[in-house]
Amino acid sequence: MHYLDHAATTPLIPEAAEAVAETARDAFANPSSVHAFGRRARAAVETARERVAAAIGAPPGDVVFTAGGTEADNLAIKGAAAKARGHGNHLVVSAFEHHAVLDSAAALGRDGFEVSIAPVERDGVVRPERVAELVRPSTVLVSMMAVNNELGTIQPLRDVVDAVKGANERTLVHTDAVQALPNVPVDVAAWGVDLASFAAHKLGGPKGVGALYVRNRVPLEPVLHGGGHERGLRSGTLNAPGAAGFGVAAEIAAKDVHERTERLLALRTRLLDGIRAAIPDVVVNGDLERRVAGNLHVSIPGAEGETMLVMLDDAGIACSAGSACQSGAVEPSHVLAAIGVPRRLAIGSLRITLGRTSTDADVDALLAVLPGIAARARALT
Amino acid sequence: MHYLDHAATTPLIPEAAEAVAETARDAFANPSSVHAFGRRARAAVETARERVAAAIGAPPGDVVFTAGGTEADNLAIKGAAAKARGHGNHLVVSAFEHHAVLDSAAALGRDGFEVSIAPVERDGVVRPERVAELVRPSTVLVSMMAVNNELGTIQPLRDVVDAVKGANERTLVHTDAVQALPNVPVDVAAWGVDLASFAAHKLGGPKGVGALYVRNRVPLEPVLHGGGHERGLRSGTLNAPGAAGFGVAAEIAAKDVHERTERLLALRTRLLDGIRAAIPDVVVNGDLERRVAGNLHVSIPGAEGETMLVMLDDAGIACSAGSACQSGAVEPSHVLAAIGVPRRLAIGSLRITLGRTSTDADVDALLAVLPGIAARARALT
Repeated sequence: MHYLDHAATTPLIPEAAEAVAETARDAFANPSSVHAFGRRARAAVETARERVAAAIGAPPGDVVFTAGGTEADNLAIKGAAAKARGHGNHLVVSAFEHHAVLDSAAALGRDGFEVSIAPVERDGVVRPERVAELVRPSTVLVSMMAVNNELGTIQPLRDVVDAVKGANERTLVHTDAVQALPNVPVDVAAWGVDLASFAAHKLGGPKGVGALYVRNRVPLEPVLHGGGHERGLRSGTLNAPGAAGFGVAAEIAAKDVHERTERLLALRTRLLDGIRAAIPDVVVNGDLERRVAGNLHVSIPGAEGETMLVMLDDAGIACSAGSACQSGAVEPSHVLAAIGVPRRLAIGSLRITLGRTSTDADVDALLAVLPGIAARARALT
Repeated sequence: MHYLDHAATTPLIPEAAEAVAETARDAFANPSSVHAFGRRARAAVETARERVAAAIGAPPGDVVFTAGGTEADNLAIKGAAAKARGHGNHLVVSAFEHHAVLDSAAALGRDGFEVSIAPVERDGVVRPERVAELVRPSTVLVSMMAVNNELGTIQPLRDVVDAVKGANERTLVHTDAVQALPNVPVDVAAWGVDLASFAAHKLGGPKGVGALYVRNRVPLEPVLHGGGHERGLRSGTLNAPGAAGFGVAAEIAAKDVHERTERLLALRTRLLDGIRAAIPDVVVNGDLERRVAGNLHVSIPGAEGETMLVMLDDAGIACSAGSACQSGAVEPSHVLAAIGVPRRLAIGSLRITLGRTSTDADVDALLAVLPGIAARARALT
């Protein structure tokens, strides 16, 4: 079995698994409890917060734990919008954001906000000036992802922040950085963003935990109300074991990112070379250079991605398609639509994502079967 | 070290810990992925859903996984209110609800809803007719907890539901049942509620996972938007390992609830008898009979709860107080205020909660030190 779907989720790093189990065993108490059991759990959470903060270049006090990337995105966008109600009523999001961003913005749209969609170019990269020209005096927030989850393309975040702040210095910039932390060095201060979302399970950490970076003075309304945990920004008993696993995984991901990038780049190059040799008309979607090392997003003209996925699955290989069958018709993903991939290519696309546990054997396995599968899928169309 | 704070959180049951670790290892994929890895994760989630559903007397399709009890409460209350906007604008919550309920209602109050607070009697039990008389034609939802988290008192839920539906058949009834599942047999169908919140960590399951029971046709707006997981009610990558641990813990909790209740009742009786013998003026807060077996909530007149907590902690014993130091003054909890415990008793209160791992040794340890600690705390006041 070969797992080539690391952008969907990643296997738990053994050290992170151990941190989860150990914290659940030795620091099981409620971190809000004042007794010794509670203090031990609180200490585990704060150690984890320091580790996550160090991995993203933030002060620990700016890290708010959430249940994942989706909750972090919701908190950033709805939280900033709710706080700004009265002062501003306009948001900008890019066209190829994750649904957690797009649908949070759409929910605000139904609630009186105006939402502008920033375009993305054919290469899968936004142009900062095209984002900035959408910014108005009433723009509360711009949300621009750091790394696109389908294409793996890396966005010029610092330039987006500068352009946006140049247009309106009060506009907040949020980034969904869920695909960034495992794949590129992350430094929220260098990016200059006000808010950034992270998810542990994308970088070898446990599922069910994430974080929102909230720069020092940025005011947010909570999305989840209750006991007032996380400085009132996120109520709910702190998941100390999850946080501990996140902290360990984030530390490891940040530490070996350069070495891992180099290794994955070599694997991906061999993979792409092999695919090109066997399927000469294969098309790479999005810029190949400005992309994380582990991502390969290709279209095989005349084949259906979903068909190939099923055949690959039968061969013990897991990856993703850039299209999905919706209401009986194959529809390209909103990401491929946003960058203008022609329909006939979009429906023949595959997202192959390598990660920490990927090996030469995974690449060999895919290269051994893909040409035959592509040919059969083409014959079926 | 003796942990007598099971209402705050519980140690992870070993079988649940194993389910978490095993699922993270063998079913790590994203349950939304279509490949074999994803299907295995999906199967783990669905098995967990069946187990949780069986433990609460619901069809599996009515169980929505969340990140915990707080999120479940937020989803129930805000979700029902958002859906009802236009038809109704009134909510009823009891005075001694958890903050996740009270603060969700308060947030809606700032957003145009009217909120009525249902009174609770001195015995810690609500009177259904006093709830029903607050119900109006515009009442969208009544939220009434199943078991109070401080007093452990069991509420007459079925009678509340009947009284509320008698006053307005369209009014939904939500129950925060977070303290119910580990302590009493749960049957949401017998209760007749429309919505019920659960948290895994209160019953020996992992932190960071909970559930909302959503009766078949009850319409809710999501609180977290995104990928449309959980039938669109709760977006975010499903935490399959957490759900698996929850499922195992819920099954175990439901299976041994009678036997455990009997055992804990004997422990609590011995504990209370011992305290009464040593501290004759001790007062039990709330009805002793209509309460879960593991809860003992007492006031020691003339002593400060927080002072006793610190001394107990020094002696290696963990429990909770019914008051807390806020802005420099000791304030009784909102629960004790709601049932009218006089201030001088409220500030001298302790919540001692037994659970699955509690033993005679825990009771002995507390009985050995509490009389001396109470005397010292009284001398300090």
